Amino acid sequence: RVLFLQGGATLQFSMVPMNFLAGIGSADYILTGAWGEKAAAEARSFGSVRIATSTAEAGYRTVPQIDDIDFDPSARYIHYTSNETIEGIEFSNDLDAHGLPVVCDASSNILSKPIDIKKYSLIYAGAQKNIGPSGVTVVIISDEMLARVPDGLPSLLDYRKIAENGSLLNTPNTWGIYIIDLVCKWLADAGGLEAIQARNIMKARILYDAIDRSDGFYSGHADRNARSLMNVTFRLPTPDLERQFCTEAASAGMVGLAGHRSVGGIRASIYNAFPLEGAECLAAFMDEFSSR
Amino acid sequence: RVLFLQGGATLQFSMVPMNFLAGIGSADYILTGAWGEKAAAEARSFGSVRIATSTAEAGYRTVPQIDDIDFDPSARYIHYTSNETIEGIEFSNDLDAHGLPVVCDASSNILSKPIDIKKYSLIYAGAQKNIGPSGVTVVIISDEMLARVPDGLPSLLDYRKIAENGSLLNTPNTWGIYIIDLVCKWLADAGGLEAIQARNIMKARILYDAIDRSDGFYSGHADRNARSLMNVTFRLPTPDLERQFCTEAASAGMVGLAGHRSVGGIRASIYNAFPLEGAECLAAFMDEFSSR
Repeated sequence: RVLFLQGGATLQFSMVPMNFLAGIGSADYILTGAWGEKAAAEARSFGSVRIATSTAEAGYRTVPQIDDIDFDPSARYIHYTSNETIEGIEFSNDLDAHGLPVVCDASSNILSKPIDIKKYSLIYAGAQKNIGPSGVTVVIISDEMLARVPDGLPSLLDYRKIAENGSLLNTPNTWGIYIIDLVCKWLADAGGLEAIQARNIMKARILYDAIDRSDGFYSGHADRNARSLMNVTFRLPTPDLERQFCTEAASAGMVGLAGHRSVGGIRASIYNAFPLEGAECLAAFMDEFSSR
Repeated sequence: RVLFLQGGATLQFSMVPMNFLAGIGSADYILTGAWGEKAAAEARSFGSVRIATSTAEAGYRTVPQIDDIDFDPSARYIHYTSNETIEGIEFSNDLDAHGLPVVCDASSNILSKPIDIKKYSLIYAGAQKNIGPSGVTVVIISDEMLARVPDGLPSLLDYRKIAENGSLLNTPNTWGIYIIDLVCKWLADAGGLEAIQARNIMKARILYDAIDRSDGFYSGHADRNARSLMNVTFRLPTPDLERQFCTEAASAGMVGLAGHRSVGGIRASIYNAFPLEGAECLAAFMDEFSSR
């Protein structure tokens, strides 16, 4: 079932435990960056949250090996963030939690590639990266999870009531949903998820190659096997050079390259809508800047 | 403080008691129609709800005399719905609750006329009637109420956290807020709230006059002193005639006149954006239809 909600992915940080954790058992959270941390923090108001694994100590540069994670076999669900926008960390495969229900915050890489939907019990995603405008949250939820929603929740925070009313329990964000329809048609016309994945891989490779051939002038934040196709994060030798890089890039028409204020550095966000030519343009600028 | 939220007025039905009633005391609800009923029903999940007065037995045709209401002097807040869209019932004045905090669902008549903002502790309104597009909820809240918000609420449901973060706790509905800015400019250019109120009174009078001169062919739902300036509701002698009325009106370019499915009849919604000429056109059609 696909639901159209409001309130952003951040509201889902609370709705997921409110619907599936309140008062009963414990949930396992996998932390690979700032968004997973926030999701776990919000969940703690509703019940027992266990950090199944976290890559925080290593500076959120990698994704855990799934075989190394000791899941709680009675966990109500496993929560993870498939792409961390701030650190530029992405799981390259669907998470397999040995039959435990998987809840995934896919806000920043949904529709960027094909996924095996059967491996997920609940996917949520704020629309504003790859789906459409801000103000809509898409939730994909299995019938098994819907059946587990307890009675007595506030109506607008109750997945089952929203599903039963076809996302029309109250007036939805009509314009946002209309734009989502147009984006889905654009995606289908462009060849669908396989085609967009191929283009996303190409865009990311162009930028990571520019990092890798810079003789260490640019240093990527993510370990190679955890590199995000959506957010390419890297540092320059000094913060001064990073500021100069952003200023000169802006003069050349490339804006929004400063990393998130919590980590600094450079971040190139290259969601579905970002063109291949943009990645080529930035890579050429990176080569030219580092050679100077 | 003005906050921009998502989730619609229906989510506020839960947020208000979650922030101001949870576990402590009781709140007084005034019921003058279907929306007030829903608000009270959602509030019951969070605490003690007392119906201070209800006009349900008389078929939601009127507004209570404030002097006749026995407010609970220790009520955490008084909740009322300033305009009921389904029944077409509107309070003509700001509610004076003898110093108790007044919480008002003004979704369907906000910005339709000047109000005395100091008489309200919290006003909430889904944007889609007079403010802008669906997908944004405007909340106007006093500092005294913000100070009463308890700790530990889910962040996106916590008025104080939202206020502290300037409504940017997460990505808001950016397009919706942009349109609200344009609507406010349009309203200011049109002469502001006094001017729009004068026009709204004129539009409503044109339609209520058509009802009143029809010798009972059209019967208004609301008592005269409770007639809404936003939603003009009336019946014809039979449901068959009501269907014929809607069909012929639609042929003449006037659509959306069927009353809400829960009450039937005819409803002409004439929010700020509805032109004076539309009211004149409908009144002329009403005269012509009844004479036939």
